Parts: sequence; C-alpha cells; structure tokens
Amino acid sequence: MKISIIGLGLIGGSYALSLKQQFKNLTLYGWDQNEAHNLAAKKHNIIDVSCRSLEEAFDQGDWILLAIPVNAIESSLSGMLDMLAPHQLVIDFGSTKEHICKVVEGHKKRDQFIAAHPIAGTEYSGPSAAFSTLYKDKVMIVCESEKTRPDFLSAFKVQCGALGMATIYLGAAEHDVHLAYVSHLSHIIAFGLSHTVLQKEASAMKILDLAGSGLASTVRLAKSSPDMWTPIFINNRSAILESLDVYLEKINDFKALLTASNGPGIRAYLEKGREIKKILK
Amino acid sequence: MKISIIGLGLIGGSYALSLKQQFKNLTLYGWDQNEAHNLAAKKHNIIDVSCRSLEEAFDQGDWILLAIPVNAIESSLSGMLDMLAPHQLVIDFGSTKEHICKVVEGHKKRDQFIAAHPIAGTEYSGPSAAFSTLYKDKVMIVCESEKTRPDFLSAFKVQCGALGMATIYLGAAEHDVHLAYVSHLSHIIAFGLSHTVLQKEASAMKILDLAGSGLASTVRLAKSSPDMWTPIFINNRSAILESLDVYLEKINDFKALLTASNGPGIRAYLEKGREIKKILK
Repeated sequence: MKISIIGLGLIGGSYALSLKQQFKNLTLYGWDQNEAHNLAAKKHNIIDVSCRSLEEAFDQGDWILLAIPVNAIESSLSGMLDMLAPHQLVIDFGSTKEHICKVVEGHKKRDQFIAAHPIAGTEYSGPSAAFSTLYKDKVMIVCESEKTRPDFLSAFKVQCGALGMATIYLGAAEHDVHLAYVSHLSHIIAFGLSHTVLQKEASAMKILDLAGSGLASTVRLAKSSPDMWTPIFINNRSAILESLDVYLEKINDFKALLTASNGPGIRAYLEKGREIKKILK
Repeated sequence: MKISIIGLGLIGGSYALSLKQQFKNLTLYGWDQNEAHNLAAKKHNIIDVSCRSLEEAFDQGDWILLAIPVNAIESSLSGMLDMLAPHQLVIDFGSTKEHICKVVEGHKKRDQFIAAHPIAGTEYSGPSAAFSTLYKDKVMIVCESEKTRPDFLSAFKVQCGALGMATIYLGAAEHDVHLAYVSHLSHIIAFGLSHTVLQKEASAMKILDLAGSGLASTVRLAKSSPDMWTPIFINNRSAILESLDVYLEKINDFKALLTASNGPGIRAYLEKGREIKKILK
C-alpha cells in the first residue's frame, strides 16, 4: 500500500514516522510546498519517496493525507476529489472541520474523503519537529463519518488504532465549537499574554530573570506557527468569537472582584476555577 | 546554626530540603499552622524538629524564614521584629514585596529583616509537593537590600548561592509591577480560561478527549492554591489591575482583527507575539 503525505511539517511528518514504525509494507510518498521541508523529510527518513510535485504525490498514493493549513485544504479539496480514482482515499488533518466538510458537501466522491483531526501537536513546527510518538495515546476525531465509505472508514480506524489512537466521531459544527473552547482559545490567550509581557518588558533579561515556570507554561502556545493558526482562526471565526466573549466575561468578573478588593469573592473564584484539577492531570 | 521555617508547604518545605542537602551543620526547626503539614514535614524528614508553636519556632531560630501567605506575613512581621534578639534574622519569601516592606519601614530592627522572593514554584502545594531541587538554577530576588545589615545580607547570598540560586536586587515597588506582568497575570489568565472551559464543557469526558496538551499547559496554573493566591492578588492589586488592562487591550485587539476577518492583521499579530520564542526556551 502507498500513502502520500501532503505537508511534511510536525503533523504530517510525525504521522509518517508513526506509520513507518508500525507498518512494514507501506511505501510513504511525500510532498511539501516548502522545498527545504522536502529535503529535510528525505534526509531524516521521514518518507521513502520525495515527490517532485503535488500532482505526483497525488497520483502515487492509495491514500492521500493532507497535513497542510486549513485554508489550503479548503481551496484544494474539491479539485482533488474530482481527480480521484475509485481505489483512492483522501484524508485531511485540519484543525477545523465545518467549512472543509461544506466545500465537498454535495461532491459525488464525498464518500472517498475522511474529515479527520488528530488531537495532538506541540508549539514547534516543520519536519525537524516531527517525532514518532506524537500520536500515541491521543484521539483521532472523525467528522461526518456517515458520509465516508464504510470500508475506508474502518481501515482508517484500524490504522489509527495501530498508532495508539482512539477514534471518536463528531459532527463538524460540534467539533469546531468544542475545539474553539478547548484549543483555539488557549492559543489566543497565549499570544495576548506574550504581547502584554513584551510591551512591558523591553529588556529580555528582565523577563528571563523574573519569570518563573508559570509564564513559560501559560505563554507556550505563542510559539505556534502563524502559517497554521491564522487560517484556523479565520476559518473557525464565529465559534472562536463566542468562546472569546465568554472568556472576556470571566476575566472581567475577576477584574471586578479585584477592583473591589473582594477577598472572599476572589477566593471563591479561584476555588471554582481550580476544579479543572479533577479533569486535567 | 539553627534555621526555623514557618510554613512547611511547597516553598518552605522545598527550601528546607535544599538546605539539608547542602549544609550538614544546620538544625532545621519547623512549624505550620496546619497540623497535618507539621506531621507530614516530620514524617518525610523535611525538618529536624517539629515545633509546638509559632513562638517556639521563633525562639529557636538564628534565622527565621517566613514561607506563609503574604497577608500573614504582613500582619505578623512587625510584631516578630519587636521580639528579635540581636543575633536573629527574619527572611520572608512572599510573592509581593511593597506592602510587606512598608509595614516595617521605620522599624528599629528593620536591618534584621530581608525581604526576599524566590522565583520558583509549581502549581502544587503542601509539604508533599516539596522537593529538594525546586530552587536549583533559579533566582532569589531581594528588595530594599540597603536596609538590611550587610553581614546578614552577604550570609544569605552565600546560602542562596550554595542552593544554586543567583541573587538579584530590586526595589520593592519595581518588583511588584514586574511580577504582576510576568507571574500574577499568568495565574489570572489560567483561572479565567478554566472558568470558560468548565462552563462550556459540563462533561469532563469531552474535555479530556478533545483537549490537547495546549489546554493543559495554558490552564496549568489554575491548579494553584487559593490560600496563597488570594492574598497575593489583593496585595498587589494596583499593579495587577494595570497589567490586566494592558492584557485586555491586547486580547481585544485580536478580537477586532478576527471580527473583521483580517487575515494579514492576524498573521502580523501572531508573528509579533511569537517573538517571545527568542526569550523563553
């Protein structure tokens, strides 16, 4: 079996490395629009064959895996389905799902497409950030699974299982709203904190000296790739704006308590917020 | 030499463990107002002698180290200095410094006090969270160092050095403003995010399944102790409100860009925020 991976960054590169480790009878083809990524992916043995064009990668793969920014998925997906042979399957790994599903909604080859989202990542990007255990014990979300051919769906689920992933099924709109709250919002918060600290602390030394590990943790996601995140934010705009308004309300609740020097109120706010302990390790 | 540690939680307990590892000729006395902490500290050999009262701990120590919430430091410090013998030194480890320094500003034994703040911690609390390497390669800030007797100051600096800490000197007000930006704000953000996620995701399973490591990192500080943090927020109110307003402005800048679907603007915002990469590892 041949799998073509389009986009050889952290997500695509790590998926390739995981596949290599678990399956011996696969040939991995790869292509990235960034030539440096192609060279790095080949050099680090992330893929077997480095394709010279998107078309070549597309033609070679039995399965074609899209690990590229969501706007690139959205603009190319329909044209890709047009060209699919009956044995071929396209899977996208984009972080938003509603708009992507919508562009191929009525497509006659919609059943040769899986709208997936692996819940895994780090703040680093590019093939050099890829590693083979990124997906171990993580979740693969599949949206609108009822629109995909059952044989493709079950084969993909088996593959994910072999990589240590549980598959979960969600509606596309539902996926996007949940992800706004539990993922996209965290990134906005981190970028906003980074702006705040950078504005105040012109001297890098001062930040390094005074900031404990708390800042590093809270601001970590601000290292994330603008190429990947700008399209996600635009794509999931309405759900993110909704979550952002709830968040601003919560921060303003705290601000009102602090403005009033309301000790018992602040303590109650912290106690309630601390309940996240029960959920996250 | 005898050191008494008042407050045997993460901060005091870890300092005791570090001292034990580096100095063989020390006797460590300890007391905590929480009796379970006294028992745990004795059981885990965090201290040598468990005192029966604050007074006993105070009387025994050549140095008396206060690792208790900042409001407790503020209310007890002046009375402690009143009772100090000439050979005794009090050191506080509170996370805010301006108000604490102010309550002993004109005290005749002000020179037997060091206003310190070790920049170290985790989101966990209590003696069971203490560990001997918490302070290694961290920074000890000392405020208003010119008001402390030079012999005490240099002995404390030597002790910090032996624990692997660099000592940095700052004004108390300056300390509090910087800490608002690089530490206190991160905690508020984490608690606000926790409230937001908990409101949306009533089902714990959904958070666990859908949230990647990004949420865990951004929300981590919301596990912090309300006992410790309520007084810090109240104590450093004005500097924190200032930093919170800058932060809200930055988040609202992002919101305006997203509301307008301004892709280039969002990308520029992310690129600028990403500069934190150069500063934090």
